[in-house]
Formats: sequence, C-alpha cells, structure tokens
Amino acid sequence: MKPIGKLAIFGVGLIGGSFALALRAAGAVGEIVGVGRSVENLQAALEIGAIDRVAATAADALDNADLVLLAMPVGQMGAVMANIAPHLQAGCVVTDAGSTKQDVVALARQYLPEHLAWFVPGHPIAGAEHSGVKAARGDLYHGRNVVLTPLPENTQAALEKVDAAWRACGANVAHTTAANHDSVFAAVSHLPHLLAFALVNDIAAKPNAEELFRHAASGFRDFTRIAASSPEMWRDICLANRIALLHELEAYQAQLARLHDMLENGDGAALEQVFDNASQARRKWATDKGL
Amino acid sequence: MKPIGKLAIFGVGLIGGSFALALRAAGAVGEIVGVGRSVENLQAALEIGAIDRVAATAADALDNADLVLLAMPVGQMGAVMANIAPHLQAGCVVTDAGSTKQDVVALARQYLPEHLAWFVPGHPIAGAEHSGVKAARGDLYHGRNVVLTPLPENTQAALEKVDAAWRACGANVAHTTAANHDSVFAAVSHLPHLLAFALVNDIAAKPNAEELFRHAASGFRDFTRIAASSPEMWRDICLANRIALLHELEAYQAQLARLHDMLENGDGAALEQVFDNASQARRKWATDKGL
Repeated sequence: MKPIGKLAIFGVGLIGGSFALALRAAGAVGEIVGVGRSVENLQAALEIGAIDRVAATAADALDNADLVLLAMPVGQMGAVMANIAPHLQAGCVVTDAGSTKQDVVALARQYLPEHLAWFVPGHPIAGAEHSGVKAARGDLYHGRNVVLTPLPENTQAALEKVDAAWRACGANVAHTTAANHDSVFAAVSHLPHLLAFALVNDIAAKPNAEELFRHAASGFRDFTRIAASSPEMWRDICLANRIALLHELEAYQAQLARLHDMLENGDGAALEQVFDNASQARRKWATDKGL
Repeated sequence: MKPIGKLAIFGVGLIGGSFALALRAAGAVGEIVGVGRSVENLQAALEIGAIDRVAATAADALDNADLVLLAMPVGQMGAVMANIAPHLQAGCVVTDAGSTKQDVVALARQYLPEHLAWFVPGHPIAGAEHSGVKAARGDLYHGRNVVLTPLPENTQAALEKVDAAWRACGANVAHTTAANHDSVFAAVSHLPHLLAFALVNDIAAKPNAEELFRHAASGFRDFTRIAASSPEMWRDICLANRIALLHELEAYQAQLARLHDMLENGDGAALEQVFDNASQARRKWATDKGL
C-alpha cells in the first residue's frame, strides 16, 4: 500500500504539478485527482501525467482522499476552503503551498474551523518565473526548503504526513511560526520581487526605453529575472503580507535615503563601506549555500 | 605583420587580461606588456599568458606601442593619465575600459590635451562579480557590446583601430556620446548595483540575519548576484556618475513611494498593473535578447 492512497490537488500548476510528479516518481502515491479553474491547464496536467483524472466536483475530489494540497494563487484560498469544507472527512490531511502563511491560517480558522487538527500550512521555496503545469518537473523540490507553520491544533500524525510527503519529493523540511515565516520572506523574497518589478516598470516607462533595454546586460538580466513572475500571484502575495512587506520596504527606503545622501555629498568612504559590507555578506552567503 | 604590433595594458585584471587573451587568440597582436599596482597580479597575468612581460616604467610600456588600454578602476584614471602623458608618442592610440565616460573624457582633456586625436573612450559591457586577472577569459567579449564614445578630435584611423581591436575580441561595437552613455548605464547598470548592495546590506544588518540568509533562495540569489561586485570599483563608478545616478535613484525612490502607497491602501489593481507592465517588458526583453 502506498503512503498516500489518494491525493487531491487544487490548482495543478507549477507547484501542484511538480508535487504530483515528484510523489509519483517516489512511488509514494496511488491516485492523483486534479481540480482547477482552467480546463486547458487540467488537460495539460493529464497529458504530462501529473494527474490521473479531473475531479468532477470538490466532493468527488475529496472522497476518500488521504492528502489534499491547495496550490492555487493565495487570492483564491478562501473561496476554495469554503468550497471544500462541507466535504472534508475527519482525518483527511490538508496542506497548502501559499507563499504567505498568516493569511492562510486566518482563512483556515474562518472556513475550516472543524478541520484545524488536520490542516498543516506550508510553503515550498521553489519560486520560478515560469508558471503553469507545463513548467512542472518531478525534481523541482530536490534539495529545496519547505517551511511548515504548524497550528497548535495539528495532530502529530497530520504533521508527519505532510513532512513525509515533502521529504519524498526530495525537499528539506523546516518548521516555524506563521508570523516569523511572513517576516522572513517579506525580507528575502517579497521585497526583492517588489524592487525588481519597480525597476523594470521604471525603465519601461522612460521615453528611451528601447535604447535602455538594448544596452542592458547580465547584471540587469539577473537582477530583474524575478520581474517576469506572475503579476496576479505577486499582487496576492503583496496584499496578503502587506504589513510585514511595508515594514521591510520602509527600512529599505530609509537605506536608499542614506545612500542618496552619500552620493549627493560625494562621500566615497561611506559608499564603499556599505558596498563592502554587502559584498562580503553576499560572498559568505554564496559560500555557505555551496554556490 | 600583426594589426597591433605592441599592446600596453595598464591594469591587467579581468577586463584588461581578457582583452589581451582575446587579441592573442585572434592573432591580432605581437607583444603585450602589462603595468599595474600589484606585483602578485602581474605575476598571475604572466602565468596565464595574458602578458609577455611586465614593463619597468610607463616610458618602457609606451615605447613604440600601437595601442594602449587603460583598464584600472576609474578612480586611478587621472593619476595614470598624468603618468603616461609625457611618454605618449603621436599616433599611439589609447582607449580605456571605464564604466563611466564623461569623467574619463574630462580627465583626458585635463591630462592628455595634446593626445585627444588618438584617445578613444570606450566601455566593454562585460560586468562580472569576479575581478582580477585569474578570472580573465579569451571569450569574455564574445557577443558582448562595447560602447565607444568618440571625441570630436579623434582621427578616423584611431577610431577604426579601437573598433577593429574590439571586433577581433568578438564584441559588437556601438558609438554614442559620453553623456548619453552615462545616462543609459546609470539606469540599466549603476542603479541596479546600488539597489542590490542596499538590499544585502539591509539584511546583513538585521538581528536575525543568519535566519534570513538561510531562507534566501533562487530569487534572492539572482537579484543580489551583483552585490558581490568589487566595492572599490563601484564606489568609483557611483562617484564618477553621481549626477546621472542621483537622477535615476530619485525616479526610483518616487516609484517606490507610489508602490508604498498602493500597498498601504491595499490597492491590488494598481499593484497588479505595475507588476504586469514590468513582467511583460521583462519577458519581451528576454525574447529580444534571445534568452
């Protein structure tokens, strides 16, 4: 018998599709059913073998399911939870892949109050500028981190089921609180995305944008890679985590104001100090990560 | 006879060393002599075959040289020009590899007033977070852009000599004015570097920096790659181009202030519009560049 008899995935895109492919490759799952907004996308998920069939209804998807992954954009989370709540059987473990966690926890408390023992919030750190199931890969989570933010209500068995599923995908699993998760990712992920979107938008709006883009080279390429990310997904993340993100943005704006003054005053020593701190920290980070 | 009989390189690092290796591989140069601050670096340049010998003095380096490349950090440009001026023979073509051009032109007008016919300012767009001659490669300039900002005083022959040398390295050569060059690169290169340095410095200064860096993933990796760049070089670039850079920084700060308001007001439609503009422009850029 497989560790997961039936897996139901709501939102079979890059994240949900890769989870399905990885569990199937690991021999950890029996049947995989998919639910989504786009018939075309579900058809593609069938074609690449991410799912065995499209569920006709939420009730059909959840019937006898052992594990449910909610992998839609965060903005649809509440509606999907409301939709599945009446059909969730006790003991059916539910997790999600949302990039923010306090908002998902609040939605779970609102829409799944009877099911909190078995709802384990999670966030696989496998950002990619590509989206959609066609970009899904069975090895997407190999060596990546997955952060779970368990609820006090969670049963040990539910937590272990989600842990084991992600480990079967090849991921490293860490646990923290939802508030700490959101604060950490506001700093290391959400703010950089906002800054990259802002830079590209800034350049694209200039009268000589064509010339500017023509001269943009490898530094620009890497700095702005994340600016090609899904606008809808990042709108939802920014809104969901806006308190922590505003906090990080304001700290960054204060830092830019200091750099502005150093530049205006021609204070080379102060600029070099900032650049040197950053360069050393970035090199140490790359070494620690084995890059 | 080789197109360049004798090449003198002042500052044999990544840029100067790669220029030497590329011209040698193309069979375009006879003798290559090197001048620099660091004996250790010049020794490494000898060992990898970037230079044939270390020049004892500026006079020795310039004696019968056909082409001179100034590839030190921009901050040393004035001192080196003052040092070479007495020894430059009429017709000896000089170019540079500085990342900013108006300041280099001003220095040339100050220190090389008798030699402006043969001084062709240039900027190879081959940024790399690595520096030093050990990172030099003969193919660094393959398919890269080199921007020349010719002076009105330049002879056609001097311009053609510099053009041909860079084309022999495999680069595409473009011409523009120094002022336009500096404005373009403030936007697409200098500002992104400043922003990446600022982000890493910001994170490194937080009490939970270790945890933040631990969770940083591929988006952070690419966004901050340029923050590992040479602090000294980027201090010089920022100071040299501070007027244009301040202009770009202020436009960016205004953009961040607008994003801050959108976040504070929870204006998802406005955020999505910015993200969508940026995402479309970034995808189009990547397609146009064949990435």
